[in-house]
Amino acid sequence: MAIIVAGHKNPDCDTIVSAIAVADLLSKRGMEAVAVAQGPATPDTKFVLDKFGLAAPAIETDATGKDVALVDTTEMSQVLDNLDKGKVVFVADHHKLGDVTTSNPLEMWVWPVGCSCTVIKSIYDFYGIEIPKGIAGAMLCAILNDTVLYKSPTCTDADKKACDVLAKIAGVADFKALGMDMLKIKGSVEGIPAVDLMNRDYKDFNMGGKKVGIGQVEVLDLTLLDKIKPALVEECKKLQAGGRHTVLLLLTDIMKEGSEILVVSENASLVEKAFGGKVGGALNSMWVEGCMSRKKQVVPPMEKAFA
Amino acid sequence: MAIIVAGHKNPDCDTIVSAIAVADLLSKRGMEAVAVAQGPATPDTKFVLDKFGLAAPAIETDATGKDVALVDTTEMSQVLDNLDKGKVVFVADHHKLGDVTTSNPLEMWVWPVGCSCTVIKSIYDFYGIEIPKGIAGAMLCAILNDTVLYKSPTCTDADKKACDVLAKIAGVADFKALGMDMLKIKGSVEGIPAVDLMNRDYKDFNMGGKKVGIGQVEVLDLTLLDKIKPALVEECKKLQAGGRHTVLLLLTDIMKEGSEILVVSENASLVEKAFGGKVGGALNSMWVEGCMSRKKQVVPPMEKAFA
Repeated sequence: MAIIVAGHKNPDCDTIVSAIAVADLLSKRGMEAVAVAQGPATPDTKFVLDKFGLAAPAIETDATGKDVALVDTTEMSQVLDNLDKGKVVFVADHHKLGDVTTSNPLEMWVWPVGCSCTVIKSIYDFYGIEIPKGIAGAMLCAILNDTVLYKSPTCTDADKKACDVLAKIAGVADFKALGMDMLKIKGSVEGIPAVDLMNRDYKDFNMGGKKVGIGQVEVLDLTLLDKIKPALVEECKKLQAGGRHTVLLLLTDIMKEGSEILVVSENASLVEKAFGGKVGGALNSMWVEGCMSRKKQVVPPMEKAFA
Repeated sequence: MAIIVAGHKNPDCDTIVSAIAVADLLSKRGMEAVAVAQGPATPDTKFVLDKFGLAAPAIETDATGKDVALVDTTEMSQVLDNLDKGKVVFVADHHKLGDVTTSNPLEMWVWPVGCSCTVIKSIYDFYGIEIPKGIAGAMLCAILNDTVLYKSPTCTDADKKACDVLAKIAGVADFKALGMDMLKIKGSVEGIPAVDLMNRDYKDFNMGGKKVGIGQVEVLDLTLLDKIKPALVEECKKLQAGGRHTVLLLLTDIMKEGSEILVVSENASLVEKAFGGKVGGALNSMWVEGCMSRKKQVVPPMEKAFA
């Protein structure tokens, strides 16, 4: 039985490319492995897969009876359904350690870097396995995507070094230009319904026993979202009504390097405590200067405030 | 503030040597780090530390306010007290993934091999850091200890390769003889009270919401335990009376390569289900042929039976 390699729900570029890369890596180490995804590729991920001639993974949402390699998450709220009825044999990730547990010893590679693909690049090196050209190009893009062209505070020297090597393998001369093309597609909001923007990069968390949803929309210029903001607030409210204590939507301005956070919460003072600011205005929001990363700048202070 | 490097409660040779090695490794990577242990070294660990000129780590049992590197466990029941009031920044382990979680990204190295020191050997290699002679010798012994001189089914080729290299670094010519000397001390039961044998290598687990304690005593010949077995059953009963659903004590015969398991349980049929045998006799026990490893051959079937 092949190992299925799967990332988080609402798959982003890193999760999909990591699944493809780990399936390749495990296969070359003699294990049968196949990449899957819990949903379709987003437009920026499609752009990357097309650019490097890779197929989008088949959709799979259930782990029952399967051997699973996890990429890009160890949170039960984000992994395949019924993961406890499957067997996790491998993990590659760059997030905080979540609540996935196993009954069996396993192989885990988790590092505090900007992108799971940076970790996976090192696993290829560790085992002396060559990275195929197309996969290298897609991994390069995943790192540029997750680190917002190195601008995110999650970006480390290891990410930059990995990009240099991956660009050479992939034969990409100007990878910053390629990254900007990708981010333009990722940040495109023209004609996209509010519900789709809300779900573009949305994750649920368990914080101190409360369900908290945090989405993020990254744009090159925040004014692009001016008209749709009220509709986005309504989407946050709908999600909250579905059993969540708090829903945040980060509207991240890549160029200004900060985020306006829309806040819908049973207790907004917890969010104010997390960020040391005030929620207010017509949209019930707050601007957080320098805030680019949900993982590094939003989840940790929120977890502390909810503890 | 220095990172404290700590293994599990009831520290064994692997946990103590891993803490010493990871403290050395992190220090050489530019982090201030110091090894601690949750209890004193056992006689076999003392033998190893003395042999290679290493000091036993200071005793520490509380993580409040500290940065922590975990070695040899990710189980909340086995880590430092108040780990949730500290910050886990690093993990090196070879067990199943336990219920430790973090609020921060971290560095984790977990592999399905016979000993945490085998993982740590590869981390030294990965970062191109030389292993000091004394630490290499102690790591060699930890691997021989955990794999019972390669006899345990947990032993992998990676463990054997690590031993070959570590023996060279440490200048140990006949490492099997050294390992046998160590195991003789580890297996010594003469004059040792039953309560000390019970606690020699004892761990608590959470299995399907029930607290389950599993201890192990490894001897070269099971007849050495004949006289003390009834007293060991009484120790199991005492532990069970302290709020545990089930307490098992594995009496492992290293030469015969199997274990007699003493069973004290609210529902012994779950244990019978786990091992596909019958509990019985004066001691309420069962012989499990080939059973050498709690981690690989006892915890997984028990967890399945209790799920």
